[in-house]
Amino acid sequence: MSESTGSGTQAPSSRTQLRRMAERGRYERDEVVEILDAGLIAHVGVNTPDGPLVLPMAYGRDDENLYLHGALANHLLNSGEGTGICVTVTHLDGLVMARTPFHNSMNYRCVVVRGQARRIDDAVAKERALKLVTDHIVANWDTSRPPTDADLRATLVLELSLSEASAKVRSGDPADDEEDMAGNWWAGVVPLTTRFELPSPSADLTEGIPTPAAIARLANRTPDIRRAR
Amino acid sequence: MSESTGSGTQAPSSRTQLRRMAERGRYERDEVVEILDAGLIAHVGVNTPDGPLVLPMAYGRDDENLYLHGALANHLLNSGEGTGICVTVTHLDGLVMARTPFHNSMNYRCVVVRGQARRIDDAVAKERALKLVTDHIVANWDTSRPPTDADLRATLVLELSLSEASAKVRSGDPADDEEDMAGNWWAGVVPLTTRFELPSPSADLTEGIPTPAAIARLANRTPDIRRAR
Repeated sequence: MSESTGSGTQAPSSRTQLRRMAERGRYERDEVVEILDAGLIAHVGVNTPDGPLVLPMAYGRDDENLYLHGALANHLLNSGEGTGICVTVTHLDGLVMARTPFHNSMNYRCVVVRGQARRIDDAVAKERALKLVTDHIVANWDTSRPPTDADLRATLVLELSLSEASAKVRSGDPADDEEDMAGNWWAGVVPLTTRFELPSPSADLTEGIPTPAAIARLANRTPDIRRAR
Repeated sequence: MSESTGSGTQAPSSRTQLRRMAERGRYERDEVVEILDAGLIAHVGVNTPDGPLVLPMAYGRDDENLYLHGALANHLLNSGEGTGICVTVTHLDGLVMARTPFHNSMNYRCVVVRGQARRIDDAVAKERALKLVTDHIVANWDTSRPPTDADLRATLVLELSLSEASAKVRSGDPADDEEDMAGNWWAGVVPLTTRFELPSPSADLTEGIPTPAAIARLANRTPDIRRAR
């Protein structure tokens, strides 16, 4: 499913050590890449003079870095540039309903990337990063109007190394206490699935312009498999 | 759809002023409540000595506060207690594909709550908050084994005032530049929907225990309407 050829094990720093539920932690690079590639938005956190701020954002990646973009004046990206940033991508796969609320949980796949974000100023590197962000969602960079110099100048792009990425996955049934098994309480999982629907052309679209193949084939697919051939 | 009876306009502090795309900002309390009630997880951000940290968490609410819970030693909640915290709930409704990547966007509904989180120590208030968190996902507190004193002691619960909540919503077609209209580029929206599937009983469930009605009726519903009667 993943387009990455990366492999090997991430060496977690103390910063990416998972503090609780350590048995759920996985540091494998393939897992990180697969979760990132299945995602559409990240929740990006920075510290600001007014406290922490978390906002949803699109993102892209290559084998080394994760990329974020926004308007030049983007408050969050400017707060995060050159300082600490946390980028979290979560897929919620199901509700885990235990025999007691104390053991309720969720099935999910989550990647957390922490580190120092760097601003990309080089025009070629910037355009490449923007193509990665665009085509991460759905490959349409080559079927749409290319960016102008003004577009590029108006856009702030940050890169964040994937070297401190960690993945955490929970799946399967609830884990109840032995002494609750005899009770008359239900336990199980309610799966959740997200799917694309049929693309809806803009009201102002000129008649006769076909839907690009990469967009047309999203219909009825889950975001997880949108890169499948 | 919302169970809240709250109304009126939130008075945004400078902290909740939206910095970009201000036209998308909405401060109405009903909007905030509807988005929170449609959500299953929040992305919670705190600042730590190692930089910002953002993790997905369950949450609950009443008319005054949002509630978070975790293990007593939960690193993120302990980092956020008594200091700044940001709780963000996002629904991704569709991909907005413009004629040029510069105008690509997402349709979404998002609530951001910032402020100082306070730890709840009073046993009655704590149990009430935990019921709100549990029943926010799906009302099963009353159909499962009640928490023991030990369960309650092992759980950390924080409250965060909703007074600094803001909502931001984007919907509809892409907003392209006039000069791109004549081009041969497609533009439109690819909607995304999330649905619950059929509940799957635990492998170790005693035969004959029925699925609670609140859980059974989730099947084929979107999280947005799980509270509908």
